[in-house]
Amino acid sequence: MASRTPSPTADRAERTTAPDRGAAGERPRRRLSVDERREQLIAVALELFSRRPPEEVSIDDIAAAAGASRPLVYHYFPGKQALYEASLRRAGRELSARFDEPMEGPLSERLYRVMGRYLDFVQSHGPGFAALLRGGSVAASAGTSAVIDEVRRAAHDQILSHLAVPAPSPGLRLTVRAWIANAEITSLEWLAERSVPVEELQLHLVQEFVASLTLTAAREPALAAELASFFADERPDGPTGRLVQDLAGLFAVPGILDAVTALAAGPQTVGPVDEAAAQATEGTVGAPAE
Amino acid sequence: MASRTPSPTADRAERTTAPDRGAAGERPRRRLSVDERREQLIAVALELFSRRPPEEVSIDDIAAAAGASRPLVYHYFPGKQALYEASLRRAGRELSARFDEPMEGPLSERLYRVMGRYLDFVQSHGPGFAALLRGGSVAASAGTSAVIDEVRRAAHDQILSHLAVPAPSPGLRLTVRAWIANAEITSLEWLAERSVPVEELQLHLVQEFVASLTLTAAREPALAAELASFFADERPDGPTGRLVQDLAGLFAVPGILDAVTALAAGPQTVGPVDEAAAQATEGTVGAPAE
Repeated sequence: MASRTPSPTADRAERTTAPDRGAAGERPRRRLSVDERREQLIAVALELFSRRPPEEVSIDDIAAAAGASRPLVYHYFPGKQALYEASLRRAGRELSARFDEPMEGPLSERLYRVMGRYLDFVQSHGPGFAALLRGGSVAASAGTSAVIDEVRRAAHDQILSHLAVPAPSPGLRLTVRAWIANAEITSLEWLAERSVPVEELQLHLVQEFVASLTLTAAREPALAAELASFFADERPDGPTGRLVQDLAGLFAVPGILDAVTALAAGPQTVGPVDEAAAQATEGTVGAPAE
Repeated sequence: MASRTPSPTADRAERTTAPDRGAAGERPRRRLSVDERREQLIAVALELFSRRPPEEVSIDDIAAAAGASRPLVYHYFPGKQALYEASLRRAGRELSARFDEPMEGPLSERLYRVMGRYLDFVQSHGPGFAALLRGGSVAASAGTSAVIDEVRRAAHDQILSHLAVPAPSPGLRLTVRAWIANAEITSLEWLAERSVPVEELQLHLVQEFVASLTLTAAREPALAAELASFFADERPDGPTGRLVQDLAGLFAVPGILDAVTALAAGPQTVGPVDEAAAQATEGTVGAPAE
């Protein structure tokens, strides 16, 4: 993608289609082919659209940054919206490529690596596309929605393929999609304020996934066996291990273990089946045992 | 906003500017004041925009449904976009009002009641506004974004006020915002497929919140005391109690308790501190113990 961006024949097109305007930007770049020039314009547009919202980027800005004339840009793209959508498609492909991860090692560590690459992407392209992703962009269109949906679908499919659950339930699919939305929004919110270090966000998002997966398995007995093998593959110093240790640490906080134990005992039935549990659940002292 | 916008002579305008068209819908409705007529048009528009995307609703549809003439509608609103935004603002106010909940009882049960009202709203208004919320609407604008952001902020503020944490950390705020996004996307996804019963979704979203809160507290020791009082107030048959029971049930699944126990033991130091834990962590059988 970054290979051979610059510009061979481009300037020839520039000279022929726009002799008067094109002269200013003229350089010895004749070798750009039509495809190469197109790709170069998209790359330049992506760079600009990644940093600023679309309403703050003009065709003139793109032409100037590409060392091309305004008519040349129009020769390739009917207008700014088309260039915007083309650069968004390029961004979508770049992002989807970052989801690729070998099927090796503990699952949470794979996801942690993917999230590192994702957060790099967010930092380099997020500022310009944030409004689009959050639903407030003037450049939103059926075309932009399609690109965004495709990236979300790629993320969803990648996660399910790593989970390797034979027949993912609707509940599991919903969990995965909800987590993707969570990651998207959390990273955009984070981008605006950067209130925590990026590594903390990276770990946090992975741990949220592990928690959501666990919750889903708690509701769906068919998933429990998958969860067992998931935990068995995890390592103590990985994201899941650290999550478990942090949660275990919570139980040392006065009151939490007692409260959770009482909740785990379940609602009281008519007769107290287990006297100790009953007392803990009621939270009363000296309640008559029967 | 609802207070006296233009048009004292509205119904007169209807009769005078469009005698032929207006006649069909004419009814003994002259008593509608300017404000009432405006509110009525917004209510009718909201009804239509809640069921269909904006591109499938015309000013004529709205006029017909309101028993008004097309010129009358234009007398109150410059165009469809303005009516769309007014109806979205109305929807936003209605939704925000549903977040109000007395500060009484276990927190997860309060949130459960709010989510019940929220999911009712999603079912009645979601189909039309889904594209807007997901970033793919042709009617998206700075005005619509402002309304959506305001509703999200109202949700965020309500949750924090119920949590009653004296000085919410950036991490806690991020957790709350991420959960709101999760609830939003999950409910819209659910609306498209309804792959699980609505009550399951309602419970699931609340439990996701409890899990996120717990995860945040696990990372932020300052929150742990708040978490202890949160758990202490919960009831065994509430959403948190059921979550704890489901998770406890998971530990009965072969392998899960062992794997989690090994993770909880933490990374191995140079010499095996605890031989059993070390073997479990390594996942090897018969590995030399020292």
